This record gives sequence, structure tokens and C-alpha cells, in this order.
Amino acid sequence: MDYVYGPGRNHLFVPGPVNIPEPVIRAMNRNNEDYRSPAIPALTKTLLEDVKKIFKTTTGTPFIIPTTGTGAWESALTNTLSPGDRIISFLIGQFSLLWIDQQQRLGFNVDVVESDWGQGANLEVMASKLEADTAHTIKAICIVHNETATGVTNNLATVRRILDHYNHPALLLVDGVSSICALDFRMDEWRVDVALTGSQKALSLPTGMGIVCASAKALEATKTAKSVRVFFDWNDYLKFYKMGTYWPYTPSIQLLYGLRAALDLIFEEGLDNVIARHGRLAKATRLAVEAWGLKNCAQKEEWFSDTVTAVIIPPYIDSSEIVKRGWKRYNLSLGLGLNKVAGKVFRIGHLGNVNELQLLGCLAGVEMILKDVGYPVKLGSGVAAACAFLQNSMPMIPSRI
Amino acid sequence: MDYVYGPGRNHLFVPGPVNIPEPVIRAMNRNNEDYRSPAIPALTKTLLEDVKKIFKTTTGTPFIIPTTGTGAWESALTNTLSPGDRIISFLIGQFSLLWIDQQQRLGFNVDVVESDWGQGANLEVMASKLEADTAHTIKAICIVHNETATGVTNNLATVRRILDHYNHPALLLVDGVSSICALDFRMDEWRVDVALTGSQKALSLPTGMGIVCASAKALEATKTAKSVRVFFDWNDYLKFYKMGTYWPYTPSIQLLYGLRAALDLIFEEGLDNVIARHGRLAKATRLAVEAWGLKNCAQKEEWFSDTVTAVIIPPYIDSSEIVKRGWKRYNLSLGLGLNKVAGKVFRIGHLGNVNELQLLGCLAGVEMILKDVGYPVKLGSGVAAACAFLQNSMPMIPSRI
Amino acid sequence: MDYVYGPGRNHLFVPGPVNIPEPVIRAMNRNNEDYRSPAIPALTKTLLEDVKKIFKTTTGTPFIIPTTGTGAWESALTNTLSPGDRIISFLIGQFSLLWIDQQQRLGFNVDVVESDWGQGANLEVMASKLEADTAHTIKAICIVHNETATGVTNNLATVRRILDHYNHPALLLVDGVSSICALDFRMDEWRVDVALTGSQKALSLPTGMGIVCASAKALEATKTAKSVRVFFDWNDYLKFYKMGTYWPYTPSIQLLYGLRAALDLIFEEGLDNVIARHGRLAKATRLAVEAWGLKNCAQKEEWFSDTVTAVIIPPYIDSSEIVKRGWKRYNLSLGLGLNKVAGKVFRIGHLGNVNELQLLGCLAGVEMILKDVGYPVKLGSGVAAACAFLQNSMPMIPSRI
Amino acid sequence: MDYVYGPGRNHLFVPGPVNIPEPVIRAMNRNNEDYRSPAIPALTKTLLEDVKKIFKTTTGTPFIIPTTGTGAWESALTNTLSPGDRIISFLIGQFSLLWIDQQQRLGFNVDVVESDWGQGANLEVMASKLEADTAHTIKAICIVHNETATGVTNNLATVRRILDHYNHPALLLVDGVSSICALDFRMDEWRVDVALTGSQKALSLPTGMGIVCASAKALEATKTAKSVRVFFDWNDYLKFYKMGTYWPYTPSIQLLYGLRAALDLIFEEGLDNVIARHGRLAKATRLAVEAWGLKNCAQKEEWFSDTVTAVIIPPYIDSSEIVKRGWKRYNLSLGLGLNKVAGKVFRIGHLGNVNELQLLGCLAGVEMILKDVGYPVKLGSGVAAACAFLQNSMPMIPSRI
Repeated sequence: MDYVYGPGRNHLFVPGPVNIPEPVIRAMNRNNEDYRSPAIPALTKTLLEDVKKIFKTTTGTPFIIPTTGTGAWESALTNTLSPGDRIISFLIGQFSLLWIDQQQRLGFNVDVVESDWGQGANLEVMASKLEADTAHTIKAICIVHNETATGVTNNLATVRRILDHYNHPALLLVDGVSSICALDFRMDEWRVDVALTGSQKALSLPTGMGIVCASAKALEATKTAKSVRVFFDWNDYLKFYKMGTYWPYTPSIQLLYGLRAALDLIFEEGLDNVIARHGRLAKATRLAVEAWGLKNCAQKEEWFSDTVTAVIIPPYIDSSEIVKRGWKRYNLSLGLGLNKVAGKVFRIGHLGNVNELQLLGCLAGVEMILKDVGYPVKLGSGVAAACAFLQNSMPMIPSRI
Repeated sequence: MDYVYGPGRNHLFVPGPVNIPEPVIRAMNRNNEDYRSPAIPALTKTLLEDVKKIFKTTTGTPFIIPTTGTGAWESALTNTLSPGDRIISFLIGQFSLLWIDQQQRLGFNVDVVESDWGQGANLEVMASKLEADTAHTIKAICIVHNETATGVTNNLATVRRILDHYNHPALLLVDGVSSICALDFRMDEWRVDVALTGSQKALSLPTGMGIVCASAKALEATKTAKSVRVFFDWNDYLKFYKMGTYWPYTPSIQLLYGLRAALDLIFEEGLDNVIARHGRLAKATRLAVEAWGLKNCAQKEEWFSDTVTAVIIPPYIDSSEIVKRGWKRYNLSLGLGLNKVAGKVFRIGHLGNVNELQLLGCLAGVEMILKDVGYPVKLGSGVAAACAFLQNSMPMIPSRI
Repeated sequence: MDYVYGPGRNHLFVPGPVNIPEPVIRAMNRNNEDYRSPAIPALTKTLLEDVKKIFKTTTGTPFIIPTTGTGAWESALTNTLSPGDRIISFLIGQFSLLWIDQQQRLGFNVDVVESDWGQGANLEVMASKLEADTAHTIKAICIVHNETATGVTNNLATVRRILDHYNHPALLLVDGVSSICALDFRMDEWRVDVALTGSQKALSLPTGMGIVCASAKALEATKTAKSVRVFFDWNDYLKFYKMGTYWPYTPSIQLLYGLRAALDLIFEEGLDNVIARHGRLAKATRLAVEAWGLKNCAQKEEWFSDTVTAVIIPPYIDSSEIVKRGWKRYNLSLGLGLNKVAGKVFRIGHLGNVNELQLLGCLAGVEMILKDVGYPVKLGSGVAAACAFLQNSMPMIPSRI
Repeated sequence: MDYVYGPGRNHLFVPGPVNIPEPVIRAMNRNNEDYRSPAIPALTKTLLEDVKKIFKTTTGTPFIIPTTGTGAWESALTNTLSPGDRIISFLIGQFSLLWIDQQQRLGFNVDVVESDWGQGANLEVMASKLEADTAHTIKAICIVHNETATGVTNNLATVRRILDHYNHPALLLVDGVSSICALDFRMDEWRVDVALTGSQKALSLPTGMGIVCASAKALEATKTAKSVRVFFDWNDYLKFYKMGTYWPYTPSIQLLYGLRAALDLIFEEGLDNVIARHGRLAKATRLAVEAWGLKNCAQKEEWFSDTVTAVIIPPYIDSSEIVKRGWKRYNLSLGLGLNKVAGKVFRIGHLGNVNELQLLGCLAGVEMILKDVGYPVKLGSGVAAACAFLQNSMPMIPSRI
């Protein structure tokens, strides 16, 4: 039963969940298995080893938790912090807002650093807070690498530099939900303490796995962290890691095989090539937006996200009409504007296992929608701008040269 | 990549995860979708309505949470109780033990009522505690309907009768992980306050959904429950139910369509027929066990589980050898003995979408394994006993008459 | 194992095999079944009834043969004709050439009516031959409705008019491989005697079923047709139709369920809407070709095919380079020029379960390829022309209004 | 849509189509592809090379034809023989009968050597005919290696010895539909000229590929063979083999990938282990039949088939009732008696990707059915006999030791 069928493929350009490649769908097309047989630990072992590569860490400890990004957030916070702990958290859009809401409900003393939606994290404010915090009351910096609601990417290297500059011991907790495996992310180099993502984002899997990676320092912090946790307790995992059975409770067999296939595809393409492809698709999208005479919600180039572009539309148009029309007429799924930017932006997700021609089909669709809703776009203009760039910059598909 | 391939079908008789029927595998064989499109709320609405039927409730409120049974437990406890609350919990096997461990780590004052492993919950002790509790300090009774480790089913109707007898207002929280959709379970009639199951059990889906159903009284309790919760907070769901978008965070598209297909199959067969089938398969298994001269871990007939049978083997055999041999020689997956009964029992799961001939193949396999490990079984004896019963009691397949 | 993996979806725009919709892939994702059980005849009965609708016949008799289009051709000829029979056959491209080759090898006396590749069947020559044939030595007219190699559609209504004009009893045998279910085809109205298609074309299934429909007159002809046939003998099918078991030999269980799903999708969209969608996609393609300054291989508008467009490229470019580059750089599969037009045309297949944005992605890709190979295309020009037309002419998706 | 759903797995024990292993179902779960891209010839090349191994030939030339076994028969005959040619053909059951019917309809002069149904080919009669045929008027010996209707296997080594003894040049054409990949078959050693099978038999794929292998002598014979053939003409394939594109018409992409996966599984298990497993399952079946007090349709041990057992039932029972009841009550699919043995035998297919416990479930089911229909079977007796043998003879699963 397909509730609302339309002819041809659905063009899925929300910033998650994203398109699942056929080989991954295939890999998950299977019956359940006994997760206590020797096969599943053997498989899990390879996954835990390989998943570290997408975090660019050799020293971190990964946890594959049967949950969503929201659960992964909760796991990062409760395993490393105690109620009442002071933490710095940046409010720059809907997903950072939701994380802050969670932080507050979990009982932390959240020092919110707010920016306009469309700007990145205000690192100067962070710097001054760190400078003032000679007593080291700040226990953690919580930052969303890529704010999915506004298409804004924060500069984590700078965050690390500032922390180092003040020699501050705060933990660095990073939401990489819409960045890891798509943007340049370097857990070890940036000494990130907890990084996390969700399976349905750049890994191009179904929803169901919150993948979290913890530094040695983060693991150390679990010993004193007094936040109540059971389902999300990393130490339950560590106990089973030691036993070599890996799973404190039943994992999804299908997602494990799916993750294996997804990682295989990423490594076959090459993680750096995957990241470069995301850069290319994002640049093409931004060139189209520019050609349409529209603005990026991200206010400066340094914040432009390579996984999602939030496009500001003129005030006389309701952006939710754009999304509705995409669905109703073009079988195109675009992202809504959320909360503060509801009605004002629509979003093009260009992350995961997607290629240039898929994006160009989407951009052509957006042009027609814009015309439908009364925006005076020159049809073909965005596609032309994107093509001009892509035709110059696309590589051959390595396996086909 | 199949890590450890063997010819033919794997015979999956662990008590979860269980065999997924082909139509459900098919229904899940799909790409991701935008969960904010109109299609997913429309689908979700039918699921929330229909899932209540497997709890036999019309008044309960269901939550489909992207988690496992362990997470569903946590959701039941934290939404209805506050740290320090006194609760009665029955320790009768590994899964009730794990739940108690969770209860203690979540900060409740757990009044543990212990039985021998192989016995059901000691309801007399509960009765005397309730009788003594005129101040109503006991806030909840936590009980596992079916203890998967020992194959023991508790009598929930009696639990309710005792509560009513003492007119005690304690909440009744029931782990129905290995019972709901397989055993006779009546949420409304027994006035269960929270009931829960996991998708990978009798629903015959992959792991990934903790399905929880709350009574009006349980929902009322959320208003005063002070346990810290965010990911598991039912009120986040209720907020989205009101909006008609249903999901506070990204659900698994595949599992939603899978649940639709699973429910369709259950309703096509008829829930009562499904339960009768479980009764039939369990009886056949017990007759085989008897014919082999072995004992059921469940000490009395009143406790015999219709979803899993734990078989006690003579002390000169290590039950884990039986499980190993099933895997290595017969492509048969049996359940290990856990904790106190490790090495002493092996378990046959006979729940979910499985039929008589599948079970008979399993029983024949067990006979050969028993012989392999030195137990003097008469080959064919268990199968003969099971067949004699089944041949008399099996109905025609309704759709094929 | 995917032999030559590229990131993202493959853009499949060859004129067959075409994209299979997800619901059809799902329907075929199954184990084998006993084809002698009651289930398969019940399914087959619905298929035979419903498949007639795509031929627009109520009086024809369909045969679903486990073969390809080539086999379907052979079945049409050998069941209705005898060696030495004089038949008229039109040579207008590679597929009509292959059919003529088969006709000759099967021993018929083929009266070949040749046209330039890019022109339709010369019906004037046919008319004069029919006029001269007062003795009715011409036993059949064999015509390809849509020549896939050149993108030329023949006018079957005119063929019928001419036959009627001369009151000629010749059978009318039509290859509808790349037309049926995509172009306007009316078996009963045009009194076509044998029409045929292949599952991998507009039905959007895998290869494996040659679907043939025979008029009462064609069935009558089988009684005197002396061509040797066993595997392709319709009378073997008819014998089994009478018995209600339908299959003289083992059918593909998967394709039967796939055909059921494919027909369901077509009827849900509405056959006339499916045909209109093909018209729209074809028109958009031709507008793009025109915008690029290129010519359609089909020389006149009356012959333009709505399922495949063969595009003539300048002599200084080898069209096979275009196809190669599509594959190697853009994950785009285009059709080669065949035989006489090898190197001179490339082909865009726009048939089957495909939608507007998929086509626009393809057109954008073709523009970049044209630039790659040195043709001075203005990037975006074709997409713009196509969009201008589509934005005006696309309907809402009916199920989503 | 599953036309006639029953709970649990269908137990598929017809002698074809047989159970498809999960990895093969997965491999076929895919969209179409351009068969003219470089990927498909690369894949095909490995298939043609590897498929020879299941024929045990290094010198033969394989053809993978989109057809069924019936089509494969026709290809074997028409490519090597001319109308009027005298051939010897053995009538020993329904499938040899159907092949003879085809041979006659194709215009050969068939010298039918008939045996009782239940006996093997009468090789003495063949020997005397060959002895008498000093003029070499006999052009071919056509023999079914394994008659699926009666469960009789012919001795091909003896056939070859007799041909050699008389130094007779007749071609040896072998139907290996229910033998190749399951029974000991040695194309090169026995100098078989044409051998053939169908994908839905021991290869455990869906129906759709007739796989034919021709000796050099058979290929030579095509030059003089005057039988009319186009779709089945091997020379069309050979032309495309030379070009390296392999396919004269569109192959099924899904079956190609499926065949790759099927061969991989066979080679992983080891072809000789596969054959040994078939021997083991067949022996277990025969022991059960004996324990039930029933007779094998195959009259002598030398003819016992290791892929299908036809069981004779007492005259007071109609064997079709056994098959019906298997379907209606036990979700068990058994083979009907065909033609001369209709009502008198039912058949258990034990070929393809099936293991011991699956068979034991089937045997238990048969016992219950026998009791249902009034045959005085001792329940458990057949399973006991089978288990006693299997428990002694089954190897460990190599990958799990």
C-alpha cells in the first residue's frame, strides 16, 4: 500500500531522511537473525571499526544506538554531564533550539548564546565566556556542526582553537547529524569529545541508528556524570564490548547489514570524494539560487552549508506553498521553513547518496514551482548556472573510466 | 555479504527477533520518504488506531517509539513515576531482573518480590504488601507478563483482582514484550495502565519500535511524574498528535509500512486465531519435551508460556553446547539459558509468524542435537507426540478452504 | 555485487528496459511458489482479463509468454502464417529490419516496403500493392507501430483504413513493443489481428514476458497456419486456459505478481493519463532538442514518437561518444544509434514509469554531454524550453490534490 | 497482494520451481539497467564462464536463453537436427512424453523407446537399435536424465558406453532440467552434445532462463541442421559473443544478477557438497517412505532420483487429495501425480537450496496428511527413520566450524 502514489520516482530533497541507494536497500532486504549467533558480533566488529573512519577518529569509541538523533543527543549529554552543570550552547536555528530545550529539560544550566537565524554560532561570545571562566565552571560546549533549519555550518576548527587558546577543559559535544559523512569533520584533529549522527542523514540509511563517538576524555567523564541514564548508558555497551557480544539489547539486524553496505559504498567512492561531491552539489545549488535572484538564509559565505540550502523567498509568497506544490504537482519533496523561518524559507537537502543529475531535476522542478507560486523566475536560469559549474567540475565516475 | 552462510533457510527459533513474513519484508523494501508529507501522517493515523487492537484497548493511547524493549520499559517508568517512588517488581528471570536493574538505576524504591527461576510472580507476597499499604505508598506494580528467560507466564487477571480487592490505586505497568499479539492480553479488561511490546517479537518485524500503550490514568500520572525524560517523553508525542503530524522526531519509514503490513496479516488471520496458533505450537512443543523425557523450566502448568519453552537438560550436558550445535550443524537458532539458568536450559521460541511444519522441523532438529550431545533421546519421539496433537487440532487455513 | 557502481541513482533513459517503479520491485521481491496451487490460476485469471485493457480490446485473446519481444514476434508469425506466405513488411529502422530478417528466416515471402530511416512506413506503396492484389495473395501486413531505432511512429488507423478501402482480408500484425501502454493503441477499433509487447518496455517490468493479443480472426488462422511451432504455439495455451490451469509450462511467479502490480499502477493513474504523460514528456524532449539546434531523426511531425526521440548530431561528432560520456561521467544511460544511424543519432527513451523531473535531469545531463563533446550548446536552453511547456501543461498528481 | 495467504512460511516441496535463497532474492531486488552498458557484458562474461562448471564442461559453449525448459528443449533440437531426422527418444514419464511430443511436432522421425512409468530408459533396446543402425540413420539420442514425474534417474554413463561400443556418431541430447546442479552430471566425461536446465530448478532461481550447453560437435551440427529457428538460434548468440556484447535481444537484468548470486552460493558450498546434500536429503526421504510402508514409484534402486521422490499410495486414496490437503491445512506444497500416475503418486521435490530441517518439517507434514486421508501411518515413523540417517551423516556447515 502506497498511501499517495505518483508516477515515476519521488524526488527526495528534504534534508533527511534521504535517498537510500539500491545496494543498501538490497542489503536490508532480509529476515531477522539470532543476534547472539557468532555472525552478528563478527559483523558488528567490522562496523565499529569502520564507522570510526567517518568520524575521522582512531582514538574514539563508537556506539551504535537503536534510536534517532534526538536520542543520540540525550546519550551525549547524560553520559558526560551532571544535572546543574553549566554548559554553553548556541541557538542558531530550530535544531539547536531543540537540543537546548533537551539540555534544559535534562537539568543542565544552559548558557545560551543566540544568533540571528541565518548566522553561525557566535564564537566571540563563547571566547569571552571562556576567558571569564577561570574557575572552569563551564563543563561543556554544545554545538551543532550544521544547523539543518537554516543551512548554516559552524566552524569547529575555530571552536577548538578558542578552547585551546584559553586552555579550557570543557568538553566539546558536537551534533554532526547533518554533517558527518558529508562535510569535512575531523574528530581527532579537532579533539571533539562527543560527535554524533543519525543513520537517515548522510549515511543514507533508514532512520533507526544514532551513531555516537566518544573521546577518551568523554569516557572518563562518564565516571562522574550523575545524569540518570539507563537505555542510553554507554557503560552498558562497554560491558558487552568486553564480552565480545556487543549488544546490551536487540539490535536491528537489517540496519546492521545496511550500515555495512552503506560504509562499503562510501569507502568505494572514497570519503573525501563523497565530501567533495557534497561540496559540488551545494555550490551548484547556490549558483541556481543566485540565478533565480533569491538569497541564501545563511548570511555569509563562511557559513554556507554543503548539505542543505535554505532559500529565502519574497514576503509575498508563503514558502509552505512551494513545498506543497512540489509534492502535489512534481513529486518533489522539499524541506519546509521551521519555526522562526516558517513561511519564509524552503530548503533543498543535497546530502547523502545523490548525484548531479538528480539535483538538476530538482532545480528544474523548483524553477517551475517558483513560477507556479508567482515568483518571476526565468525558467532554465538556475539549471544553466548549475550546469555551467558542474560541467567544468564533475569528475568521471572512477569505476567507469 | 552474509557473514556465515549455510544452505537452505535458517531455522529461527530464538524467542526474538523472530521470522519476518515475506509480505512484511516486501512492504519494508523501499526508499525513504519525507515524513512531513501528507502520506506519513495518514499512514500513522491508521497505525495508531489499529495497534490498539493488539492491546485489546479502546481507551488507551499508543506510542510508537523508535527504540527497543529496554527503551519502552524506560518510557513506561519515567513517564508515570518520580524518583524515590516505591514500586513492587517481581524477579522471576533474566528479563524481570534487567527491568528491576533499570528501575533501581532510575532511582525508584524497588520492593523486589523474588521467586525461583521457573516460578511465576509471587502474588501472595504482593497481596500482603498491598494489604499492609494502607497509606498507598506503593505507586506501581511492575510485572513481566511473560518471562522470556524461563518461559513463565504470569496471571495478570489475578494481579488485577488482588489490586481491586485491596482497592489499591497503584499503577499496573506490564512488560508484554514476549506476550502481546501472541498470548491472551486484555489491557482494558485488566485495567493495565502501561503495556508495552517490541516490534521484533510477536509482531514479527525487525527491531526498532517500542510500542507502548498508556491508560488515561497513566497519562494523568505524567503530570506529576518527576522522572527526567526527554527522548521518552510521551507529552512530546501528544503535542504532535494534536497537530496531526504525529512525530516529534524522524520515524523509520520502513518500519511504519512494515507495521501496516504486519497488522494487516494479523487481522487477516484474526488476532484470536493468532493467539490460538501460539497455544497450539506451544502445546506441541511441550508434548515433544515430555516425550524426550525432559522437563519444562516453568514448574507448574499454570505458568507454561505459549511463546517460549525453556527446556531443562540433565546436569551432565551444557545447554550452550546444544545451541552451538544447532547453529553449526543444523542451521537452527535456539535460545541460550541466561544467567542463573545458563548452561542448564535451552530455549525454543515459538512466537510470531511461524507455522506447525516449521516447528516440527525445529523439533526434529532438537532431537538430533540431543543425540549429538549424548542425551539418550529416541529419535522421532518428540515429533510423533507433537504430530499426534497437531493432526487433531490444526484448523484448515481459512483463506484456502 | 554491482559491477560498475556510481553514486546516486542511475538515470535510465534507454528506450528499454526502463525504470521499474518501487511498488513493482516490491511485488516481485518474493520466493517461488507452486504454480499448480489454486493461487496462481486465480492470479493469472485477473492478469489475462486486465492485460486486455492495455491493448484496448475486449474481444482479443491474450498470451503471456515467457520470452522477449523477439519471441513474441515469432509467436505472432508462426501461429498465423505458413511458410511461403506472402506478407508485406515495412523496413524503416533497425527493429523493423530485425523483424523482417526473422520473417525471411521463418520462410515467408516477404514483400519489403522500405523507407528512409527517419520516415514512417510507406503506406502508399502498401495501398498500391493491396490494390493490385485482387487474388489476395498477401496474407499479412506486418508493421512496427513505433520504430525504436529512429523514434518514428506509424499511423495504424490509416493502415486499417487502407485495408478496408480495398476490402483486403490480410491479417494485420503489429509490433507494439515500444508503443503499447504508452501510445494511443486501439486493437479492437483498428481491428489489429495480432498485437504484442514486451514486459520491459512501457509496462516497466523486467524483461521476461512477451505479451501477445490475438483477434478471433488470428485464432482462426492458427488452424491452417503450417509454420512449425511448439514453444510458441498458442493452442497449447488455449488448452490450458480451458482447463483453468493456464500454464503449459512454468511461468515466472515473480513476473506474474509484478505484472499485477504494474497493471494496478497503470489503472490507478488511468491508462489515458499514462498516455498523456508520455505525450507530455515527448513534447518536452522535442522542445529541448529544438532549443539545442538539433534535429529529430523522425523527419516529419506526424511520425514523431512519444516514447523515444532519436536526435541527429552534427557529422563532426560520433554519437557513441555521447552515450559513453553519459555513462562514464553522469550516470546517465542513453540509447546508441543502431546500424544505418550508428554514430549519427543518440536516443532518449522517455517511456514507462518516469516523470517530468526525471526527464529534466536527463535533459540537463544531455546538455552537459553535448558541451563535453564539442557541440556549442547553450547550457540550460533545452531545460528552459521543456520547463516552459511542462509548467503550463502538467496536471496535479490526482491522488494528491 | 498475496492471493491465498497462510501464516508462516510456505513449505515448497514441489520439484520446481523451488525455494530461492535469501541472498539470491536480494541480488534480484533491483531496477532495470541498460544492457548495452559495459557492466552487463562484464557480468555476462563471468556467468558464461562459471555456468560451464555446473555442467562439468570446459569445452562446451553455454547459452543463457530467456525461456523455460520447454524452450531449452526446442533450442537443443532445432539447432542440431533437420526435419525428418531419425532420433531415439525414451518415454518413461510425463516430461519425456512432452519432449517426445515436441520432437514429433517439430517434424523429427522419433523412434520412441517406451518403459513402464517407474522404470528407467530401456538401454537394451537402444543398444539393439544402434547395433542395427550401421547406416547411421539415427541422428540423435534424446534422453531425460531425471524424469521429474516418476522420480527416475537414467544412467548417462551407460548411454555413452553403449554409443561408444557401437562407435555410433549420433548426437547425445540430454534434458538435465531436474538434475544439473543437483545430481552427478559430467558433460565432458560423458561426451554429452547438448545438455540443458532451467533456472527454477536446482539453481534455485525464478523461472526465466533456459540454460543450454553445446559441445563442439553440436555446434558443428548447427551448420547442417535445417530445422527452422530464429528466437532459439544459437548462431545469433555466437555472433554477439564474438562482438563481446553477448545478447541478441534484451536479457533479464534481474536474472543475470540472480544467477551470479546463485552460482556464488553453489561454489561457496562446493558443487560436490551440493550434490552430496541432494543425495542425503533424497536418502532421508526414501527412508521415511519406507517407514510409512509406502513404495517409491521408481521400481529399482538404480533409478532412484536424488531430486524428486514419487510416492505410490494405496488405491483407496486419491493422491491429489494429499496435495490439496497439504496446501489447505499445512501450507505445504507437494507435487501431483501426472498423467498415467495421476491420483496414484504424490511427489516430494527435494532439490535446490533446501536443508535437512526443512525436509523434516515436510516429512512430518506428509505423515499428518497421510493420517488425514485415512492411511494408517504411525506418526513420527518417517521422521525417525530420516533423522536416524541424517544425524549420522550430516556434516557441519563448513563456514561455521
